[in-house]
Formats: sequence, C-alpha cells, structure tokens
Amino acid sequence: MSMIRFQENPLIRPADVKPSRDDVEVVCAFNCGCASFDGGIILLLRVAERPVHGPHEVVAPILHPDDLGRGLHFLRVDRQDPAFEDIDPRVFRYQGRTYLTSISHLRLARSADGRNFRVDDAPTLFPLLRAEEFGTEDPRITRIEDSYYINYSAVSRWGVATALAETRDFKTFERRGIIFAPDNRDVTIFPERIGGRYLCHHRPMAAMFGRQDIWLAESTDLLHWGNHRFVCACRPGAWDAHKVGGGAVPIRTERGWLSIYHGADESQRYCLGALLTDLEEPDKVLGRSTQPVLAPEADYERAGFFGNVVFSCGAIAQDDGRVIVYYGSSDEHTCAAETTVDDLLAKLD
Amino acid sequence: MSMIRFQENPLIRPADVKPSRDDVEVVCAFNCGCASFDGGIILLLRVAERPVHGPHEVVAPILHPDDLGRGLHFLRVDRQDPAFEDIDPRVFRYQGRTYLTSISHLRLARSADGRNFRVDDAPTLFPLLRAEEFGTEDPRITRIEDSYYINYSAVSRWGVATALAETRDFKTFERRGIIFAPDNRDVTIFPERIGGRYLCHHRPMAAMFGRQDIWLAESTDLLHWGNHRFVCACRPGAWDAHKVGGGAVPIRTERGWLSIYHGADESQRYCLGALLTDLEEPDKVLGRSTQPVLAPEADYERAGFFGNVVFSCGAIAQDDGRVIVYYGSSDEHTCAAETTVDDLLAKLD
Repeated sequence: MSMIRFQENPLIRPADVKPSRDDVEVVCAFNCGCASFDGGIILLLRVAERPVHGPHEVVAPILHPDDLGRGLHFLRVDRQDPAFEDIDPRVFRYQGRTYLTSISHLRLARSADGRNFRVDDAPTLFPLLRAEEFGTEDPRITRIEDSYYINYSAVSRWGVATALAETRDFKTFERRGIIFAPDNRDVTIFPERIGGRYLCHHRPMAAMFGRQDIWLAESTDLLHWGNHRFVCACRPGAWDAHKVGGGAVPIRTERGWLSIYHGADESQRYCLGALLTDLEEPDKVLGRSTQPVLAPEADYERAGFFGNVVFSCGAIAQDDGRVIVYYGSSDEHTCAAETTVDDLLAKLD
Repeated sequence: MSMIRFQENPLIRPADVKPSRDDVEVVCAFNCGCASFDGGIILLLRVAERPVHGPHEVVAPILHPDDLGRGLHFLRVDRQDPAFEDIDPRVFRYQGRTYLTSISHLRLARSADGRNFRVDDAPTLFPLLRAEEFGTEDPRITRIEDSYYINYSAVSRWGVATALAETRDFKTFERRGIIFAPDNRDVTIFPERIGGRYLCHHRPMAAMFGRQDIWLAESTDLLHWGNHRFVCACRPGAWDAHKVGGGAVPIRTERGWLSIYHGADESQRYCLGALLTDLEEPDKVLGRSTQPVLAPEADYERAGFFGNVVFSCGAIAQDDGRVIVYYGSSDEHTCAAETTVDDLLAKLD
C-alpha cells in the first residue's frame, strides 16, 4: 500500500474538542471535510456528543423542536426496557423507532502545516432544521470560484438527507436547505462546472431492492438537482461488497476525475478505494481499484467507537501531485495519510 | 362514502389491450394518469405484460441492453430452483436479486365522455433507458400552460426512480431523464408555479429508518429539484399505517391544495385518502381524512392480480366542483368514481 499514514495520527482525538455544552461529552471527532484556505488547511470535523449516562441506560440526544438553535433534549432508555433494541454502538431502536446514541455537529479546526490542528471552541454548524434533529454529519467542502460549498448529512426521524451550506470566509455561513431527500448521503460536488452544469456524485439508498450505489446528478444552481444517472455499484465478494459511497471531492487528472470513495464489506469493515470517471461524462467509469488503497490496519483504525473503519470526506491535492487524504478512524478520530495521484491511478484495474 | 363508482367499472380490462408483441400477454391495464385534451379525456395507462409461461416457472421480462427501443429478454426461473424466492404476484427474488414478474409500458386511451375508452394499439412510452429496464409505471400528467408533463416510475435493478416526459399533442413525446433518484416514486407535480417555483409532492423511501413519507420539492425548470421538506407520514394503527404516497395531481381549492393520496396498512390493503396542504407552502398540512375516501370493496377491487387495492394516479376536477377519480383496482383494471371537492373537504379532520 502506497498510502503513508501521518506519524502524528490520530491528528485529532475527542479529548481535543471542547464540548458544546456542560452536560455532554465529546465521543467522536472524525469524518472531516477539508479545504486549503488562507495559506493553511481548514478541517470541518464531525463532532459527536452525548450526555454522560450510566451503564444501564442509553440516551438519544435530539434537537429540541422549540429551540432549534442549540437546545437539546435527551431520550433516556433503560436497557432492560422490553421496547429497547440494541443495534450497534451508533444506533438503537426504541418502541419501533430508530435513534442515534449521539448527536453530531460540524466544527472547524485550523492548521498552518496540515498536521497540527487547533479546534475551535464552539460549533460551526450546529443542527438547526427539523430535518437535522438527530445531527449534522460527514461534511464535504468544494471550492468553486470564491465560494466554499459544504454539503453534509442531515439526520432526523425521517431519515438521512443531504443539506448544503455556503461560506466565503469560514466565519459566516449561509444555510441553503435540503438538496437531496432521504435516504441520500455521501454527496461530493465537483470543483468546476462541466458543460455549464454543476455535477455531483451521490449515494441514494434504494430500499426496495436493497441497493446502495453511486449516482451522478447535475444542477444549474447547486440547489436543485436532476438528470440522475447510475455510476457504479457494490461488487459481490469484494472489499466493497456491501456498500459504496463517495468520499473526497473528485480530483481532476489528465486521465479523468479521480475519486477516493469508501466501501464496506458484509462485516462492516470500511476501506478506501479509488475510482476514475470520464472527464466530460463522470457517470462513465474508466477504472476502479480492485484492492483498497487504505484499509483499517493501524491500532486506531481497528479499535474505537466503531472499529475497523477508515472513512474519508476530503483530500487536498497539491500542485506537485501529492494528495493528503484526511479520514476518520474507527468512527472516533481524525487522521491523515499521504499518497500521490500517480500512485492512486496505478491502483486502478 | 360519497364516492360513487362508475357503473361501467372496470372501464378497461387487460383483455381490452393489444399486446405490444406476439410473445407476451397483457396481465394488467391500470394506474393511469389522466388529462382533459382536445375536448375529451386522455388516460395514460400502465400496461403490464409478461410472456406466456408454464405453471412451474416464473419469468422476468427485462429490457434488452442492446436494443433499448423495444427489445426484451426473458429471465426464466424454475420455481423449484433453490435460488428462487417467491415474494408476491408482482415480485420475486433470484440469486439474491429482485425481479418483477411483468414489464410495464405506458399507453394512451382516449374517450369523448370519460367512460368509454379506446386503447391505442401501440405503446406510447415504452422503456428506453437502462434505468427503465424493468419497466415504466404509474404515470401522472400535469398540464402547465401548453405542455403536459408526464412523470412516471422508472424501474431497474438499481431501484425505483422517477422520470419525466413532455408532450403538447400526445403524439410526440420528449423524454427528459431521471428527475428523482431511487427509491422515489408517487411524484405529483403541481399545476401552477407558486412563488415562481414549480412544486411537487414526492415519496422517497428512507431505508435506514424504514420510512415512506410524503415530501415537498421545488424546481425552477421541472428537471432539477431541491429544497426538500417533509410533508406527512404514515399514521400508526390507521388505514395508512404502512405507506403513503401522492396519487392525483393536487387540485387548487379556496381552502388549500387538495390531494387524493394512497395509503396502505400492514396487510397491504391500499385505500385512497384526502390531504389538504397550504396554498402558498404546501408542506404545511391543513387537514387529512381520518377514514379512506375510497376503500377496496367492489369485487373488482378485492380480487385480481394483487387484490385489495385501489390506487389513483389522476383525477379530473371540473368547473362545477365534480371530481372524476381514475384509479387502478387490484393492480389489474382501470376504474373511475365520481365525487366533489366539497365532499372531499368534508372528509378532512
């Protein structure tokens, strides 16, 4: 594997992040979007919080509908309650409904060298919409001209949708609403218009036939999306047999759009792969890595809040061909690894 | 119940429809969109066909990828094959994949009086896209100015998406591609712009939390959709406990947008209900019928290809307040019933 992990990994741990309020703890700081900004590197972390609670209960923190700015209420459930159903560390069911064990917001971290980060003390994008009542997750940042477009998962009782926000200075942010209805996540907006249209890869979940495939969509304004076309599917028997989804914003290369995506197998082991799509028609797949370009092998990738996971929401492509991939490890920490465009292209089938 | 069934029901039966090719039979002619056109009534039927086959096999007709215009191939499966899994008359699974037992196309039927229809001999919109390889289903027709916009379910191995076509004369049709990625169906486009935007109700299927709710979306061009907002959900314990979805194109009334929608309970019994949403912000629900406005009670609604189903894709609202609701019965026939706007409004809670 030609992806070299940073020696400083994990770059950011939950203990490095100040809780957003006194009655919660930060359990995960991971799955960051990233951008070059103001001579340094900006990360937009997903920070997951939950109230301190006893071993015999589980708690779902939920945005309070009467206080959408910052208020939370806590659904506390006794694990002995016959209406409680344990799923995994991230999710439980209660009285037939699905809840998350933490609520995520998005928070900035800043660095001059891309290795040593200072995390902001306060949330950057806290859940605000009813469709975000269970949290805002997994941001991707795409710079187009002078704006940075941030898309993220908006989670609620109604499912996992994708919302958009926009900033020019990473100080003020304009929320632009839900751009993909549930369930749809892992949206990566391309960094330039093609044929006059904005494009993105997205990952609808097709319930009826049990599919989780990557699709292409186009837009005239980044707010309204259409002309959906299938891109690629899971591969039975492979490391990405169970699910696939976009990861980092696609990188333009001479051979095509290079995407770092994630795939999971039936055991919920998440790896990163490389996908190459046509420069003009990025629903056409030109190549795909048969083996992962990064698999959970380091200690901090194998154990944690939800182990055996590496999951990227962003990468920085440098002019010299180097690519810094930021990724979450074990749904808990923020890490990075270095590779090159040539190395990734060499992995394609 | 103040909805009066037409004495002529079923108006159209499968035997009234000429097969699109010699080696298939028409098994269902149902779930039609409708429009007033040229002094009469146009129905756009969903016509489901399958090859004649023996009792010991099941056959999935699939659009041939090398002949997207009209070619089909037939996946024949022995019911004794251990890789075969029976689901219901509409669907089976084989080797872990989901297939349909018939393939649907859309076909016009024409009438001067709205009761006696002549079905065209040839398909109007036959599956054409790869994303339509399992069929085109359940059209809705919305007239806006001089154009008729037809949205329909595009079904393939990748799930159930929604596609758009446009016509001005019901002779030539322009296909406009996939407007909602899978799984999303039951799209009803409003018949006028509101605040400069086109609107629709749509019904994503949120796999992760097992939801099938009605949402609102907006568009500037009918091709790209965004600003998704939740409208309404299933009601536990009610006749619409298991799924809901848009039916007929919303009708403007003084009190709000009146929609005839479908709901199913846990036993897959499909009924029609009424929904009233705000004229300016049709994600706001003003009323909803606690009881069905039409339930499967007639013989042709209780027995058939998939019994205990009434399902509407269109209604004709007349200037005098009468509403003719066209609907499919038992996933097999085309029927109609008459009611009034006032009667429907009186059913709201």
